[in-house]
Amino acid sequence: MATEAGLLPHVVIVGGGFGGLGAARALRRLNVRITLIDKTNHHLFQPLLYQVATAMLMPGQIAAPIRQVLSSHRRANVLLGEVEGIDSENREVIVKTPEHGAIRVGYDFLVIATGVQHSYFGHDEFERNAPGMKTMADATKVRNKVLHAFEAAEGEPDRAAREAMLTFVLVGGGPTGVEMAGAIAELARLTMKEDFRRIDPQQTRILLVEAGPRVLGGFHPDLSTKVAQRLTSMGVEVLTGHAVEQIDDEGVTVGGERIAARTVIWTAGVTPSPVARWLNAPADRAGRVRVRYDLSVPGAPEIFVIGDVAAYEQDGRPLPGVAQVAMQMGAHVARTLAARLHNDAPPPPFHYVDKGSMAVVGRNYAVFQRGDIRLEGYFAFVMWSLIHVLFLALPNLRVSVFLQWVWSYFSGQRGSRLIVETPAAAAEEPVEVIRS
Amino acid sequence: MATEAGLLPHVVIVGGGFGGLGAARALRRLNVRITLIDKTNHHLFQPLLYQVATAMLMPGQIAAPIRQVLSSHRRANVLLGEVEGIDSENREVIVKTPEHGAIRVGYDFLVIATGVQHSYFGHDEFERNAPGMKTMADATKVRNKVLHAFEAAEGEPDRAAREAMLTFVLVGGGPTGVEMAGAIAELARLTMKEDFRRIDPQQTRILLVEAGPRVLGGFHPDLSTKVAQRLTSMGVEVLTGHAVEQIDDEGVTVGGERIAARTVIWTAGVTPSPVARWLNAPADRAGRVRVRYDLSVPGAPEIFVIGDVAAYEQDGRPLPGVAQVAMQMGAHVARTLAARLHNDAPPPPFHYVDKGSMAVVGRNYAVFQRGDIRLEGYFAFVMWSLIHVLFLALPNLRVSVFLQWVWSYFSGQRGSRLIVETPAAAAEEPVEVIRS
Repeated sequence: MATEAGLLPHVVIVGGGFGGLGAARALRRLNVRITLIDKTNHHLFQPLLYQVATAMLMPGQIAAPIRQVLSSHRRANVLLGEVEGIDSENREVIVKTPEHGAIRVGYDFLVIATGVQHSYFGHDEFERNAPGMKTMADATKVRNKVLHAFEAAEGEPDRAAREAMLTFVLVGGGPTGVEMAGAIAELARLTMKEDFRRIDPQQTRILLVEAGPRVLGGFHPDLSTKVAQRLTSMGVEVLTGHAVEQIDDEGVTVGGERIAARTVIWTAGVTPSPVARWLNAPADRAGRVRVRYDLSVPGAPEIFVIGDVAAYEQDGRPLPGVAQVAMQMGAHVARTLAARLHNDAPPPPFHYVDKGSMAVVGRNYAVFQRGDIRLEGYFAFVMWSLIHVLFLALPNLRVSVFLQWVWSYFSGQRGSRLIVETPAAAAEEPVEVIRS
Repeated sequence: MATEAGLLPHVVIVGGGFGGLGAARALRRLNVRITLIDKTNHHLFQPLLYQVATAMLMPGQIAAPIRQVLSSHRRANVLLGEVEGIDSENREVIVKTPEHGAIRVGYDFLVIATGVQHSYFGHDEFERNAPGMKTMADATKVRNKVLHAFEAAEGEPDRAAREAMLTFVLVGGGPTGVEMAGAIAELARLTMKEDFRRIDPQQTRILLVEAGPRVLGGFHPDLSTKVAQRLTSMGVEVLTGHAVEQIDDEGVTVGGERIAARTVIWTAGVTPSPVARWLNAPADRAGRVRVRYDLSVPGAPEIFVIGDVAAYEQDGRPLPGVAQVAMQMGAHVARTLAARLHNDAPPPPFHYVDKGSMAVVGRNYAVFQRGDIRLEGYFAFVMWSLIHVLFLALPNLRVSVFLQWVWSYFSGQRGSRLIVETPAAAAEEPVEVIRS
C-alpha cells in the first residue's frame, strides 16, 4: 500500500452528491483519512431541486453544507475545488481551487462520483433559452425566469406577446419534467391566483414535450398513462412522440409547428462528467465508465467510479442514474475498502436493491413502483413526501421542509417567490500554489 | 383632481420598503387605485439583512413577495421596474422595466419612498473590495465572501496569507456593523468550531472600525460602552476614532497602519436616491428632500416624500433614517390623502413617536433605548428577537424565522451556509413600449 510512514491510508472522494457523501459516511468506521472534493460547498438534494425552481422551497432548505455533514468525522477533510484531471501514474488528483489555482492531491484510494450535467445533444445553442436543472445555480436561474415571465406578462399590452410570456415549455418527460409541469401549474393556478390585476394566471399554458412514446419512460406504462391524465386534468398539455427541433428567443418548434414561448426548460438529457477521459478507461456509449464487479476501474483497483458516471449492468441491463444506486454504490466501496485494509475476503459483487421509484404531480398525487408493486394517488403522495423529508442530509432541513410543506399544503402559498439576481462574486486573482 | 372620468384617483408609490409598503397598506381603506413600483419583487426586512450575510437566515426568510403582501388589496397593482425620473408637469413617473423598456405611469398622487444606497464618500474604488449591505444581492455577495474566506484559509499553506484570509474588517460602527461583528464572531467561534481540519476558526480576527468616538453613536454613551465591552469579550477588536484611509486587494489602512485582510465590509455610509434631482426640490446637505409638515414637497402638494429620502426636523433635529420613521410617515400620508379626498380638515403635522431603538450583539445580548429608558443584556435580547419576528411582513416568515432562531440558539448551527454564485439571469432584449 502506498501509504507514507505513520500515515493512515488516504481516500480521496470526488463529488459530494449521493454517491460521494454516501461513501464518506460509510467510511467513517474505517481507519482512513478522507478528503472529499466538491465544486460547491453543499450537498444538493437534487430530487427536490424542481421545488426551488418553482419557488416552493428556498435554496438553503435542500442544500446541506458538506463540512457540517462531515463535521463530527474528524479524519474527513473537505476541499472546495473542481477536478480537472487525474494523474493515475502518480496517484494524484489535479484540482482547480477558486483560491489557490491548480493543486495536486495525492491518494491511496480514489472514489469518483462526479455525476452528470445536462446535455443538449449537440444543440448547445439551446442552452441560452432553455436552461437545464442540475445545480442550485440552474434552479435559481429557472426560478428567476419563471417568476419574471408573469411580471413581464402583467405589463405587456400586446395580446400575442402576453400569451407567449404565459407559455411554459418543458422539454423532457422524465420525472423532473413531469414534476416541474405539475409545480408550475400549481404556482400559476393556485399560488398566484389573486396576485395579478391585468393577467389571469389561470390562463397560463404549460406544455410537456417528450420525444419518446410516453412520459416517465422508466415506469410501467399504466403509471405513465395515469400521470399523463393527471397532468392533463391540471391543464398541462402533454405532447409525447414529439421531439423539439428548435429553441430560440421566440419559442420552440415541435413537430414542425412553432409555439411562441418565453420560458423553456430543458430536462431532456444528461451527459456524464469526463471521467473516462481522465482515466483513459473503457466507457459505454453514453460516456460512463464501465466498472468491474467491485466498482473499480479495470486495471486500476485503487480507483472506484460510482453513481451516474458508472456503467454497471445487472440482470443484463444498465442501472439507472438515480440517487439510490449512487448511495448503495458508495456503501459498497466502503465495504470493499474495509475488506482490503483488513485483508479479508472481498464482499460479493455489487448488487443493487431497488427500493422503488417515485414521481409526484402537484399536491395529492404521486406514483410509486417497486417490482410488481404499483401505487398511485394520494397515499403515494404522502409516502413520497415522508420519504423525501427523511432523506434530507441534516435534521434541521427535515424539520424546515416538512413545516414548509404542511404550511403550503393548507395555504396554497409557497416558500420563496424571490427574484434575486446575485452579482457574480467579485473575481479574485487565484494565487498559483502547487502542493504535492 | 386630475382623475379621468369614472376612474378612482391613482396613487403611485415608488419603493416597497417600510415606507412604501406602509403607505400601501394604510391606503387600503381609501377608495383609490394604487400602483406600487419597486426594483425588486420583494419587500426586504432590512434589519435582519445582516443575518443573511452571516448565513443565519436564508434570503427567502426575510423577503416577502410584494404581490403576495398586497394580494388581497384588489385595487393595488405592483409594477417591477426602476424609476428613472419624474415628469411632475405631466404627473408621470418614468419607469425602466426589465421587460418593456421605459414606460410612463400617470399619477394623481405620488408617494416616493426610495430609500438610500450605500455610499463610499467619494471613494467608489472601495466598493470592489468592501461591498455594502443594502440589498439582498449585497447580502448574498457578502455571505459568499465570508464563507469563501474560511475555505480559502483552510487550503492556504502560507501563514501570513492564511491570517489575512481569517481577518474580517467591518467599516462603520453603527447597528449593522456592530451586529455583523457579533454574528461573524459566532459564526467562526461557535458554528464552524468543528468544521475545519487545518485552520482553527477560533483564531479569526474581527475588527470593527468606527471613525466617530464610539460605536452606536445614535445610542446613549453608556450603551455604546457596554456594547463595545461585549464585543471585546467576544474577541472583536473595536477601533473607535479611526477612519479607514484605504481599502484595496491586500487589506485596509487605518490610522496609517496596514492591516492585511481579505474580507472588508462597508456599513459606514449611505446616500439617498436622487429624488431631489428628479423633483428639482430643496434638499438638505445629505441630499434628502426637505418636506413640508404633511410630508409633501414644497410647491407640489400631490407629491409626498417619506422614509430615508425625506429630511424632516422634529424638536430641532432631523429624524433618523430608520424603519419606524418610514412606517409612521407612510401611515401619515394615508391620513392626509383621506382628509383631502373626503374634504376633511388635514391631520395635524407629522409627528414621529419613537418606540425605541435596539441593537443586538450575538446571542443573549442586546441594547434597547427609548427616551430615558435603557436596557441591556439578556432581557433586551429576548425583546429584540420577539419584536423582529413580529414585524416580518408575512405570518409564514414569522414562524420560519422564529423556529430557525430557536433551533440555532440550542444547536449553535445556522440556517444557510450556502455558497451559490447565481449567474446573472439571461439577458433579455427589452421591448420598447411607451404607455401613457
